[in-house]
Amino acid sequence: MKFSVQNDALQKGISIVEKAVSGRTSLPILENIFLELREGQLKLRGNDLEIGIENSFPIESDSVEGSVLVKAKTFSNIISKLPQGKLDLSVDENNKVVIKGTNVDFDIHGTATKEYPVFPTIDSGSKFQLKVGELCDLIKHTIFSVSFDETKQFLNGILIENKDGHINFVATDGYRLALKKQPFSLSEPFSVIAPFKAINELNKIIQSLDPEREVEVTVSKTQIAFKMKDFLLVSRVIQGQFPDYGQVIPSETNIVFSVPRKPLLDACERASIIASASNNVVRLRFENEALTLEANAKELGDFKESCDISRIMGEGTLEIAFNVRLLLDVIKTLTTDDIKMSFNNELSPGKVQSISDESFTYIIMPIRTNTYQQAEKKEEVQSTASVNG
Amino acid sequence: MKFSVQNDALQKGISIVEKAVSGRTSLPILENIFLELREGQLKLRGNDLEIGIENSFPIESDSVEGSVLVKAKTFSNIISKLPQGKLDLSVDENNKVVIKGTNVDFDIHGTATKEYPVFPTIDSGSKFQLKVGELCDLIKHTIFSVSFDETKQFLNGILIENKDGHINFVATDGYRLALKKQPFSLSEPFSVIAPFKAINELNKIIQSLDPEREVEVTVSKTQIAFKMKDFLLVSRVIQGQFPDYGQVIPSETNIVFSVPRKPLLDACERASIIASASNNVVRLRFENEALTLEANAKELGDFKESCDISRIMGEGTLEIAFNVRLLLDVIKTLTTDDIKMSFNNELSPGKVQSISDESFTYIIMPIRTNTYQQAEKKEEVQSTASVNG
Repeated sequence: MKFSVQNDALQKGISIVEKAVSGRTSLPILENIFLELREGQLKLRGNDLEIGIENSFPIESDSVEGSVLVKAKTFSNIISKLPQGKLDLSVDENNKVVIKGTNVDFDIHGTATKEYPVFPTIDSGSKFQLKVGELCDLIKHTIFSVSFDETKQFLNGILIENKDGHINFVATDGYRLALKKQPFSLSEPFSVIAPFKAINELNKIIQSLDPEREVEVTVSKTQIAFKMKDFLLVSRVIQGQFPDYGQVIPSETNIVFSVPRKPLLDACERASIIASASNNVVRLRFENEALTLEANAKELGDFKESCDISRIMGEGTLEIAFNVRLLLDVIKTLTTDDIKMSFNNELSPGKVQSISDESFTYIIMPIRTNTYQQAEKKEEVQSTASVNG
Repeated sequence: MKFSVQNDALQKGISIVEKAVSGRTSLPILENIFLELREGQLKLRGNDLEIGIENSFPIESDSVEGSVLVKAKTFSNIISKLPQGKLDLSVDENNKVVIKGTNVDFDIHGTATKEYPVFPTIDSGSKFQLKVGELCDLIKHTIFSVSFDETKQFLNGILIENKDGHINFVATDGYRLALKKQPFSLSEPFSVIAPFKAINELNKIIQSLDPEREVEVTVSKTQIAFKMKDFLLVSRVIQGQFPDYGQVIPSETNIVFSVPRKPLLDACERASIIASASNNVVRLRFENEALTLEANAKELGDFKESCDISRIMGEGTLEIAFNVRLLLDVIKTLTTDDIKMSFNNELSPGKVQSISDESFTYIIMPIRTNTYQQAEKKEEVQSTASVNG
């Protein structure tokens, strides 16, 4: 193999595929990046047996085809520290990789590609297009609710389903649930759980791209693939039954408030200083025109703050307690000036949405605590319900 | 105690004194910040029994004097998350600290100050002035050479001495030595070893200040203090005998080159990718107009790079090996376009300086290795000499 390449193109390719290269693995061959030059295209691949990522770009003529494996860490380090401009790469019959820049010469040990695992392919399945911007939006609104509880693998990813004319992304950890919908015209129904890692790496890669670019998504029973002109990510999907989340979302709520986002964000961040020492409990008291937040911790002290709100529906005062971290997660995700918070009572799940946008729904379980003092004394705080049972 | 204060002034004071607050300590009282309001001045203090830092600033009238201890982490967290502008603080007879901003109210538990260790004071000793800029320069050129070897406590700081009409800062870890001199007119001689932590925290605090501001330094047998109008840092000094570093600095060198800084920095950073897998050894070959760097590692491969240099003195070719990390440290510290590198032979210490500035001297021990291959096979690399014996 022999070719010349612009440093920046190679660096970009490496940075994409190395997201699928294992740092620590029992299979050292997975610590490599796969390089292949065929028909004028340089293909780079990373593969950790769970996800595979491929990036390719054209190479000018005067090149010699071939393939090799190189240690991802060393290769990435070398290319990033070489000056911008043209680099000459060649691989000899002993898999020695020679990388040349002006006055610089690296000769590094490569490995033959024959032992490298086959890159996963999806032959059949539902196929559809999403724009980069749409995909980012679906991911952003749900990924923070994924569970990392290894005993509940079916919650360690995002449910992606085609249902009732929408593509839905859903994630839950049993204490909160995030659902983002988008109108969708594919007729075949599908429903898969895409692992956190695949979606998270995809998100990092596409975030800087033009939001209008098209991504071709293919969903099969065992795999999901995201494909663009120069990019392919294939991941296994999680086998298991995602909870029937529809049951958790209250069909009706009778107490609804409009709450300004920034003051609520600031108040929750301050509350979390104290709440962090008492199971993250923050108590909210909604009155007609004011929301008061309180947090108390035996070792630290007390916090109290109020902000102006407006009532959209219902009457009376509502006192309800939440895990402040679960509240902060959704407040940070929303970008509108005002947030709609809907309730039935202090023991039922609360619903958080943007004002005038029902495509996103966040359900948060209240914490059962009559008073802070009691919760503190018992040193235990319980969620009143759970999304998955 | 009761006072009003601007958030930014209090935040700045906390950020300074918390550098002397222990994160983990067997004495929980040291996790606090000491606050005292006396004669219109609010004093903040941190103290970890090794260093003490004090910051003070005036408080408007209508205040009530007093003192209290507050948990540094909680207090810092609260103040940094409260909105900018005026805050009202008060402390009651039970040491409850009430912090009020618009619509916000924190009541946190404080502690009486009577158990807090006495702040260290220096009554006697040599006293002199340095400008902030001068002090930063003395620290920057030496602090990276301090040893962290706990069995050699006398190397765990910077030697500060008054000698031959100069104030000298000296640091060494046995493999390299950094000396920065500055003309000085104090007649009394002194010589102390200031601990790394004290100098490091001082450096962080003064770096953003006006370089023309004066710092009053007091040196006694047991302590060193750095004082400004609103700031005081007092530290114990390290007891022990600093090595006679004068012996290590070659009085004459007969082979001298001028080397361009940026190309040498880039080449060393690239060399370190390979060298990191072989005891950090980089071999330099100086010829009349070219310097060639090589690094080799059995597992990774080989590196070779050359750059243009010019000879200032001597003749013939010199091949010498160094730890590339010790070379990188000094190249990153120097800021001039060209670096002067002086040698006697491949087994004697090398000297690195800025061209046309002899106030800074860096001595670096060569590594004895006939060829890389031999060094690699032996899996051992030895420094030819040591600064401290």
